[in-house]
Amino acid sequence: MSSDNKTSGATALPNRKPVATSGQAGALSRWLAQKLLQASGNPRVRIRLWDDTELRVEDAPAPVATMRVHTRPALWRLALRPDLYFGEGYMSGEIEVDGDLVAFLEEVYRAGDHDSTGTLRDRARRLLAQRKTNSLMGSRSNIHHHYDIGNEFYRLWLDTAAMQYTCAYFPRAGATLEEAQVAKLDHVCRKLQLRPGQTVIEAGCGWGGLARHMAREYGVTVRAYNISHEQVRYARERAATEGLADRVEYLEDDYRNISGQCDAFVSVGMLEHVGPEHYVELGRVIDRVLSPRGRGLIHSIGRNRAAPMNAWIERRIFPGAHPPSLREMMDIFEEHQFSILDVENLRLHYAETLRHWMDRYEHHLDKVEEMFDAPFIRAWRLYLTGSIAAFTTGELQLFQVAFARHANNDIPLTREHLYRAEPAASGTA
Amino acid sequence: MSSDNKTSGATALPNRKPVATSGQAGALSRWLAQKLLQASGNPRVRIRLWDDTELRVEDAPAPVATMRVHTRPALWRLALRPDLYFGEGYMSGEIEVDGDLVAFLEEVYRAGDHDSTGTLRDRARRLLAQRKTNSLMGSRSNIHHHYDIGNEFYRLWLDTAAMQYTCAYFPRAGATLEEAQVAKLDHVCRKLQLRPGQTVIEAGCGWGGLARHMAREYGVTVRAYNISHEQVRYARERAATEGLADRVEYLEDDYRNISGQCDAFVSVGMLEHVGPEHYVELGRVIDRVLSPRGRGLIHSIGRNRAAPMNAWIERRIFPGAHPPSLREMMDIFEEHQFSILDVENLRLHYAETLRHWMDRYEHHLDKVEEMFDAPFIRAWRLYLTGSIAAFTTGELQLFQVAFARHANNDIPLTREHLYRAEPAASGTA
Repeated sequence: MSSDNKTSGATALPNRKPVATSGQAGALSRWLAQKLLQASGNPRVRIRLWDDTELRVEDAPAPVATMRVHTRPALWRLALRPDLYFGEGYMSGEIEVDGDLVAFLEEVYRAGDHDSTGTLRDRARRLLAQRKTNSLMGSRSNIHHHYDIGNEFYRLWLDTAAMQYTCAYFPRAGATLEEAQVAKLDHVCRKLQLRPGQTVIEAGCGWGGLARHMAREYGVTVRAYNISHEQVRYARERAATEGLADRVEYLEDDYRNISGQCDAFVSVGMLEHVGPEHYVELGRVIDRVLSPRGRGLIHSIGRNRAAPMNAWIERRIFPGAHPPSLREMMDIFEEHQFSILDVENLRLHYAETLRHWMDRYEHHLDKVEEMFDAPFIRAWRLYLTGSIAAFTTGELQLFQVAFARHANNDIPLTREHLYRAEPAASGTA
Repeated sequence: MSSDNKTSGATALPNRKPVATSGQAGALSRWLAQKLLQASGNPRVRIRLWDDTELRVEDAPAPVATMRVHTRPALWRLALRPDLYFGEGYMSGEIEVDGDLVAFLEEVYRAGDHDSTGTLRDRARRLLAQRKTNSLMGSRSNIHHHYDIGNEFYRLWLDTAAMQYTCAYFPRAGATLEEAQVAKLDHVCRKLQLRPGQTVIEAGCGWGGLARHMAREYGVTVRAYNISHEQVRYARERAATEGLADRVEYLEDDYRNISGQCDAFVSVGMLEHVGPEHYVELGRVIDRVLSPRGRGLIHSIGRNRAAPMNAWIERRIFPGAHPPSLREMMDIFEEHQFSILDVENLRLHYAETLRHWMDRYEHHLDKVEEMFDAPFIRAWRLYLTGSIAAFTTGELQLFQVAFARHANNDIPLTREHLYRAEPAASGTA
């Protein structure tokens, strides 16, 4: 159970002692499981061991779910380092959760708030953290790990409109994922004040949906960078099919090699992979390419304060990833005195986006099973549900940061233009 | 001429050498004036010395204005430390500016961008800076210096609607100052999601206009803190006159002594006087009083990156003041994991607000002259015009930061509610 990054919840009972309510497991195993619950802030969950020994916090309200630990080694590893070995055990099948997995993870995140020892442990872990470095070669390897596992897989559960693997924007409750992803693209374009004929540089373009949308709906030309070979291949094909190849150029290259000049610089969902040690470098890239009256936008998962990525996610899902705090992000902007115009936190939109992805993932499980083995399927389920819980409990944030050069007065007086009823774009694919 | 904090402008000519074009001043004085222009990044301004010797940058476009230096000591001091002694000389009358004072100051700010030596000098100055400390007693003295000089004086040039001495919000170009100040109050209230019956704590309430507006238009009860005796006296009288005394309580006390609980915490224009060394303390105060589902808003002048206050402003206008960078502001929020929901930069609104104040100040000059002597009048003119230039050139920013506790999901999904046509409030006084 991850105890990274405390959240304040009123649900756990920090002063209660977990007790075994049934079962015959050895004294040491029972003691370990008790310690695990205590160190996790006594969440309202039940632990069931391999011999049906059950543990939960005494006198607590009904548990939200039951974590079943099927082997003794899994319990030992879990007690030793829950942030890593809950995920490992879940992936291997040695750990299962009966009940709502999102509710279980939310409860664990919230209870972690009361775990005062966790903070110290986190600090030590941060110092010792061996994050995969995002050098030019390291980035390629880290990105290949996640984004090159197959466009067909992502197509099963991402939106069909623009194949967006980033937080959508729900202008109203009940919007479809497709509507919300297109609304996100428009929200970004409006914040960038795009005008026909302007040039845009995009850093980290995924499958190219934003670049095509900008070119088609806002009449701009785009140079979009990405180091994922599979994504660039897909993006080029789709731009050609849609007759946009003359206005959108996809470059299979690192953001550090970005060249040229642009009226708008945009990056949606790349910063998480850059690493804070490279933020000053990213700022220099932006300073090099952005015109005097240019605007910029960076969209990234973030934190309320600096903390390392969950260890299991970093090992299995996103090597080298780090969601920054706003303080950390300032390294991008301060050296060149970029002026922050607007920061919007879309945390709850990401929880909703992930719920849509999760529903589609489970809906297409038969197709996923044809592609991947059981540990992969469980890992992906844990990653998606854990992310829902991280956004609903405030573990993670989603920041959209709009900026301009500090002496640029060609900026809108208010943000009212972002909320006009008529869409800025005429339509969507 | 302030060389604090570089701005990028394309108007100055860094590589040109200033030349004397006429006059008989001694070689040393001419050399000093040349050095002054060079060290300021060669702004397009003319210097005229006491004997009509003129200096300007060779082959430069027409100067935007002429700075007249009437005495040799004033020139020496100016060359030694322009950020302090331009203001001192202007205040004493030893330095005058012929032409548009705002345009002159804008040109000087922009040219400072090219002054590479200035950066090092700034850094040294920052280390040596002896800012007046904002201890409990120090704060009282610093605030008394500025805010207790007479309500009658401020009434001459602030808006009549709400007596706001902070940045207004112009929902459209051409709005009056009164409309824009009331719009600012509503913008703040909407960001705070105020609902009838809720409680608000305000830190640093000026003449109490926001507190009265919140109580009258949003049906909340307010406890508002201020250490300026004159302002609190005025605020209480006006609340009594308007029949709001039962819903608005003004406390003549320091923000560190704030007690009680609230659904919303708000501070408009106080943070500039808090000092970065007290931000963690301010965060603890907010954490102590804010309810689990509470929202907060801090409105403050700021910087794109940390820098000391202009030395003359700090000496003569705002002792102890410091406009923070966003990075510095994070000290308020991070310890308690407050979640930043929204940052809006209203820089150009402050330039427009100051233009209105300046117009009214000059319009009522006869009345000001009955109250104060000539150095005060010149000092205030320089302060207001210099502030216009600081906001138009991007020297200064205006940040509104809305936040909530990190686990609070009772937050609006979008910001569309800030821009609805119908006002949230039913009307204004």
